[in-house]
Amino acid sequence: MALLFTDAAVLPMTACGDVAKTFTGSVGIVGNRIALVSSVDAEIEAFREAHPDLKTYDCRGKLVMPGLIDTHCHAAMTLQRSYADDIPLMRWLNDYIWPFEAHQTPDDVALGMELGIVEMLLGGVTSVVDMYYYEDRCVEVARRMGIRAMLGCNYFDRNIDEVLPQIERAVELSADCDRIRIAAAPHAPYTVSPDNLLRGKEICDRYGLHLMTHVAETQDEVRIVRERYAKTPVGHLDALGLLSPRTIAAHCVHLDAQDIATLADRGVVVSHNPQSNMKISSGVAPIAELLRAGATVTVATDGTCSNNDLDMWEELRTASFLQKSATGDPCVLPAYEALKLATASGARAMGRSDGELGVLREGALADLIVVDLQKPHLQPIHDVVSNLVYCGKASDVETVVVDGRVVVEQRQVLGANLPELFARVDETVRRILAKIRNSQLVC
Amino acid sequence: MALLFTDAAVLPMTACGDVAKTFTGSVGIVGNRIALVSSVDAEIEAFREAHPDLKTYDCRGKLVMPGLIDTHCHAAMTLQRSYADDIPLMRWLNDYIWPFEAHQTPDDVALGMELGIVEMLLGGVTSVVDMYYYEDRCVEVARRMGIRAMLGCNYFDRNIDEVLPQIERAVELSADCDRIRIAAAPHAPYTVSPDNLLRGKEICDRYGLHLMTHVAETQDEVRIVRERYAKTPVGHLDALGLLSPRTIAAHCVHLDAQDIATLADRGVVVSHNPQSNMKISSGVAPIAELLRAGATVTVATDGTCSNNDLDMWEELRTASFLQKSATGDPCVLPAYEALKLATASGARAMGRSDGELGVLREGALADLIVVDLQKPHLQPIHDVVSNLVYCGKASDVETVVVDGRVVVEQRQVLGANLPELFARVDETVRRILAKIRNSQLVC
Repeated sequence: MALLFTDAAVLPMTACGDVAKTFTGSVGIVGNRIALVSSVDAEIEAFREAHPDLKTYDCRGKLVMPGLIDTHCHAAMTLQRSYADDIPLMRWLNDYIWPFEAHQTPDDVALGMELGIVEMLLGGVTSVVDMYYYEDRCVEVARRMGIRAMLGCNYFDRNIDEVLPQIERAVELSADCDRIRIAAAPHAPYTVSPDNLLRGKEICDRYGLHLMTHVAETQDEVRIVRERYAKTPVGHLDALGLLSPRTIAAHCVHLDAQDIATLADRGVVVSHNPQSNMKISSGVAPIAELLRAGATVTVATDGTCSNNDLDMWEELRTASFLQKSATGDPCVLPAYEALKLATASGARAMGRSDGELGVLREGALADLIVVDLQKPHLQPIHDVVSNLVYCGKASDVETVVVDGRVVVEQRQVLGANLPELFARVDETVRRILAKIRNSQLVC
Repeated sequence: MALLFTDAAVLPMTACGDVAKTFTGSVGIVGNRIALVSSVDAEIEAFREAHPDLKTYDCRGKLVMPGLIDTHCHAAMTLQRSYADDIPLMRWLNDYIWPFEAHQTPDDVALGMELGIVEMLLGGVTSVVDMYYYEDRCVEVARRMGIRAMLGCNYFDRNIDEVLPQIERAVELSADCDRIRIAAAPHAPYTVSPDNLLRGKEICDRYGLHLMTHVAETQDEVRIVRERYAKTPVGHLDALGLLSPRTIAAHCVHLDAQDIATLADRGVVVSHNPQSNMKISSGVAPIAELLRAGATVTVATDGTCSNNDLDMWEELRTASFLQKSATGDPCVLPAYEALKLATASGARAMGRSDGELGVLREGALADLIVVDLQKPHLQPIHDVVSNLVYCGKASDVETVVVDGRVVVEQRQVLGANLPELFARVDETVRRILAKIRNSQLVC
């Protein structure tokens, strides 16, 4: 079936230079591709005639734009949302996160992923790069819920032998679904040995996968890698041959000039996590410099343990505000550029070529959202892009399409039963917390 | 008529030490005061019996808490939302803000205020400290819309003789409405002469008003004040005798140790505007230090020209994130403390004594909001306060009561016709922009 979104403010995210960023027009979808982006009545009429069975969405007073792309997430950790905040890192890990994770089953992880996907879709996130364990179990969830996903199987030295087969299994489970892609995800250059980093690269080369990892998130990490390898984290990964356009480097907070040049030169996808970096006090990533150097920069939430939500509107806004604050230049990362990080640029993290995703153009993958502009905080409309970036909210997203399929309509996630989902989540969390308490009693 | 909110998660914002922050119970209102905060069935039953005409709100799965208090806003500037972003300060003022303001009528300002109030109420903001011109004209709007307001009549040296009579007029227009209070608002210590600052103080003393001003927002301001008066902005205001618990000092970004001690010692209400400070690249206010020194710190939006919305959830969250980022300490400004700035502490900016506003306790003013917790981004509930502060959204607010009157119900602003309001705003903005274009043609 074809879809047609009519009389919308269309924001295709393909403008550059002085080209108008939006126009009034219609967007048509056939199958999983965008088949029409037009303001010409005759073209729109021809589309209607060619697709007599099409479903039409009246978008007067609304805006149609590409869906948002979250390029670094630990979605299953929604089960641990607000479980432990405002405490020092090591207490957070030792007393909360690790015990919780030790008592989670693969089904629990899948449930956390389901809750995370519901939140993402409702907020207009159509693509997510995820990084966690039991991602092979999550292939089914992502397929069923309809989100576009790059699922990164996270490993450390201690569990690589368990995880590598999971990667192969996940590849197999998603082989017939182009919307789901799999990646190897060594945790970080300071927690995974060079040999085991290379084993990740090897499996990526074998199956044509992406590789994702945390890079230079904290000063401690930089110090450890320097002590061990006499290189920066970026330099170390580069020396191992791990940096390419198929590498997603999350955080990249503590970089030197050479690191910035290397990331740009290798075409690495930098995933910037501004709210996480702020909340965990990691530092401020040099995004303005990375962009000046020509690096591919994208935006991400980092999941609910360090943020604590999956709201990409807040992230892209914070990305802009934080760069302005840190550089002292209020002109840095203007609204449209910030939005590009979360759409057109984000597409590269999903392994898509420029123009294939994160934009509205004929032939591109049909991931789009309808934003209701008839809200007090989005009026008046002097500049709709500024309104979206500086005032837009997850709750303004009305309809969401991924891969040509409507997954949210009138703010309802199709196929999800929220009260039932919340009850399952609550029950699961109680069970895990009881297991933690029991194991502590035994010790 | 009495109101009763039953079976809610109640967050009274009165906890300190190890006292539980929330409990399950009911909140009752009689007239404009909170008359019941209880988890005891017999007490709740007695309240029902004493008020047979009461209206009951079933709050299962919801949370009841004090309304949010925005302590520094230029609400009428909603007409200029996203009018000019990402450009240098002087171009912003000269080419956009000042020409726009020159062509605004008092009715236009009242309309901007109306749009701002609608946005605030829908987002759970029950009290606002405003600062702009034609505030005498805005008394009627604030009265009609039902928000609690402290309206600060802004003046410079050039227009003080027009504004002082407006203050007297505003005092007169609000004399019979305790919900509306008036303040003198000299723009800043670098734009208003010492004599004219003192004329503001004099009128405050005469009528028992608050005084509000911008303080130490930028390094330029500090430099100018130092050059002119050989003092910091805080030192200068203090030497003039302008600092007291009835002073609201907006921004306070660039302070030295003595300034911090002075603000704390004089009981000044510091209004922190984190998103504005970030977006305009003003710097980071030393909030953690101010709190350690015992200063009264509150949170604010600064209006839609520098933010660009009136969302206090984002501000209080950003307040916490920004302090964690700037200090390098992830434990600074934890969730509950951040929420206190926007509730219990904010009450002081409204000229209320501790416990009279911004808390749920018997005898306090009845300003409260009902938050719907049945949202994916607010589940599961390990810690409801962390969920609110780190994930809460304006759109989660379902019902809003100010001064005992329901002003928002089921996310509808009672008495407001949004399509009609947006049309009037659009028409007004077009008229003002046309006037600007015409005047430029004449020049």
